[in-house]
Amino acid sequence: MARQERAIRTRRVILEAAGAVFDEHGYTATTISMVLERAEVTKGALYFHFSSKESLAQAVLDEQVPFAAVPPQPCKLQELVDMTFVFGQRLLGNSLLKGSVRLAVDQSAPPGSDHSGPFRQWADHLVVLLERARDQGELLPTVVPRQTVELLVGAFAGIQLMSRALTDRADLAERISVLWGHVLPSIAVPGLLPGIDREPDRGARVLAALDEAGAEQVAVDASG
Amino acid sequence: MARQERAIRTRRVILEAAGAVFDEHGYTATTISMVLERAEVTKGALYFHFSSKESLAQAVLDEQVPFAAVPPQPCKLQELVDMTFVFGQRLLGNSLLKGSVRLAVDQSAPPGSDHSGPFRQWADHLVVLLERARDQGELLPTVVPRQTVELLVGAFAGIQLMSRALTDRADLAERISVLWGHVLPSIAVPGLLPGIDREPDRGARVLAALDEAGAEQVAVDASG
Repeated sequence: MARQERAIRTRRVILEAAGAVFDEHGYTATTISMVLERAEVTKGALYFHFSSKESLAQAVLDEQVPFAAVPPQPCKLQELVDMTFVFGQRLLGNSLLKGSVRLAVDQSAPPGSDHSGPFRQWADHLVVLLERARDQGELLPTVVPRQTVELLVGAFAGIQLMSRALTDRADLAERISVLWGHVLPSIAVPGLLPGIDREPDRGARVLAALDEAGAEQVAVDASG
Repeated sequence: MARQERAIRTRRVILEAAGAVFDEHGYTATTISMVLERAEVTKGALYFHFSSKESLAQAVLDEQVPFAAVPPQPCKLQELVDMTFVFGQRLLGNSLLKGSVRLAVDQSAPPGSDHSGPFRQWADHLVVLLERARDQGELLPTVVPRQTVELLVGAFAGIQLMSRALTDRADLAERISVLWGHVLPSIAVPGLLPGIDREPDRGARVLAALDEAGAEQVAVDASG
């Protein structure tokens, strides 16, 4: 393994360990030692990549948006819906993502810093998609894309918190479905509504299709 | 001042100090000493009312729902809308409420305990109102009141977090207005929509009317 590749792997191992520790203990109670123990790397390796607990938290926060990656859809509203379900589905199993989400809603993390990062990143990321939906004629003329995406980002943050508090996220997909059931009629042109899939198992189905496509790609690569 | 009255006041002073400290430092970093210093009461007085930091946090959490008290309205959806705006307005200035809301979304507060308290209390409180709205014919037949109130509670929790992170809550009333703009068309019978006031300054106006009514009541009491 080349040195650079090894460094990338080590960085990832540290990030995943940090995510798990931040998720379990929160920002304030987490120490670098706890991350070192979980990651099973040396202090030198950790400080090579991250200069402090703050920079580690920032890196964990920056990992959030890529977890919502989904296959493109002809209907951009469907793609937006898919991103929320896939993100919710991944949130059930991925410790790095859990830690990142906990940090995003933790008012104490990192201390004295700007808490707006993930909220802004999400809004900036999603507004592009909603503007494409508008350009394709999917939206009612009353919709202001920036307002709608900021509502979705804020609402999602709270819904996942509530789901975590009430059922340890077991009902998160149902709550996401209810969110879309209430918001879609206010933003989508009526003819589009019946065709948008917002069933609670949407995230699991999209991820299964992605995994299958990934396996096929590996097979193609191997036979090439 | 009677002994009981003094005890009630002392308890309130402690709760308000605790709310302020929890708001500023979060659950984990808050200590009983910090609350004592802020409240300017003796250790004995505090422990007379609260046996631990956990019980103090629980009491602060339990103060939340009463802050949404508003005058009754003929249209129960308007009353529900008013509760969110008034709660948002009070959240700008009241440290006890700020602390209570921070604890509610703080995954570490109190450790090992059930975090679902405020979410459940809100849903149980609001569902009664939404069921009255349904009984009065205000809702579309597709609405499931429990689902809608749980969506509103979760969404509100996240929206206030996002508003706090982006603008220290300066745009909270606007975000509440956007929430209702997206949700009302999916739940209210169309004829009702134009009559529901969801302007961002709704909370300030309802509170001003309440204060005026309170001042009049004092005048009536004094002349009686």
